[in-house]
Amino acid sequence: MPVAAPAPARSSSAAARRSHAERGEAREDTRTRLVRAGIETVLERGWAASGVDTILRAVGVPKGSFYHYFPSKDDFGYAVLEGYQAFFLKRLGRCFGGDVPGRCLREQFDAFLAESLDGMARHGWRRGCLVGALGQELGGLHEGFRGRLLASLDAWGEVLARAIAAAQARGEVRPGLDPRQTARGFWAAWEGAVLRARLARDGGPLEAAVADFRRLVAPD
Amino acid sequence: MPVAAPAPARSSSAAARRSHAERGEAREDTRTRLVRAGIETVLERGWAASGVDTILRAVGVPKGSFYHYFPSKDDFGYAVLEGYQAFFLKRLGRCFGGDVPGRCLREQFDAFLAESLDGMARHGWRRGCLVGALGQELGGLHEGFRGRLLASLDAWGEVLARAIAAAQARGEVRPGLDPRQTARGFWAAWEGAVLRARLARDGGPLEAAVADFRRLVAPD
Repeated sequence: MPVAAPAPARSSSAAARRSHAERGEAREDTRTRLVRAGIETVLERGWAASGVDTILRAVGVPKGSFYHYFPSKDDFGYAVLEGYQAFFLKRLGRCFGGDVPGRCLREQFDAFLAESLDGMARHGWRRGCLVGALGQELGGLHEGFRGRLLASLDAWGEVLARAIAAAQARGEVRPGLDPRQTARGFWAAWEGAVLRARLARDGGPLEAAVADFRRLVAPD
Repeated sequence: MPVAAPAPARSSSAAARRSHAERGEAREDTRTRLVRAGIETVLERGWAASGVDTILRAVGVPKGSFYHYFPSKDDFGYAVLEGYQAFFLKRLGRCFGGDVPGRCLREQFDAFLAESLDGMARHGWRRGCLVGALGQELGGLHEGFRGRLLASLDAWGEVLARAIAAAQARGEVRPGLDPRQTARGFWAAWEGAVLRARLARDGGPLEAAVADFRRLVAPD
């Protein structure tokens, strides 16, 4: 039965493909869970105090599996930063991107402030910003992290610069101002505000940073 | 010789006092050296990665001696923060205090910016701010550090608020503004600027933070 013969083979190959896809999914799922646990742990404890063992216990994954996904703790850290960056760029897209057309810059910042306050309050002000956390611990001596952290901040700067330039075209922002430089300045000020908000367990510093930004960009 | 008898006793007691004082000096010196090494190490590597052993090797002090001065690593950390705070308040006194009378707020900030740029450049931009470093790592979960770090930031705020209020009285700052709130806002923005300057190995973010502050407080 040369015609029928391939059938089981196809079927078995389909099963193999499905099983491979399932394994891929499980693999993706374990990796994603490790990264998510990494983000949460590093946000609360910092990098050096986030032992791989603690993260493995939280996720319920054996050590061998961890090193299957991440050759070293640094590689894990890069993935954690990448995961956080994806989360944060999604927030920036919601707040400053074209997701809600017709919003003025003030409304965009209202949305961003509300999400940020809610995010910090929800975790009892124990979690700040991963870029700030890794930046403080590893920004001095670790070239691999330093470059990636700066690139992360610059990517936020690009998103905000576009929103500022659009607002400038609508007359909401004073004409003389450089959107990119202004955006970078905001993210620097924001990082410090998040640090203080976490220490004070209070949203006031975040509100103050946005209020200062508004005053800085307001048309004369 | 009942009259002479006390002489050697006095002399021996004087020697004991001198020896005690010398030991006190040596003691102070070792403690100071440990704290200084702690400041340098934590500024570059962060808290968790600053092992007591590394600091002991740098200073050339045996472990038992360390625990003689500091019952725990946390106690050492508090002393390190205290040492840094003393250094920084001295800088603030030089720049914003009455040390150089007759300076306007612009000149005071020029002096502060120059010292800060020089300080960061001198160490190859590897060192940022100890309050930012400890704040990121320990501000989330460690109550002992959280309170001390907030108090440190508030002390800087008080010094700057006095300088702002004096400048306001001289008409250099717009009247409506609250000096204490404005000072706190500056230190938050400054912390973020130091983070970015360290990542970028460039003083631009510090200059931008001061320029933004000047625009924020300028009379209308």
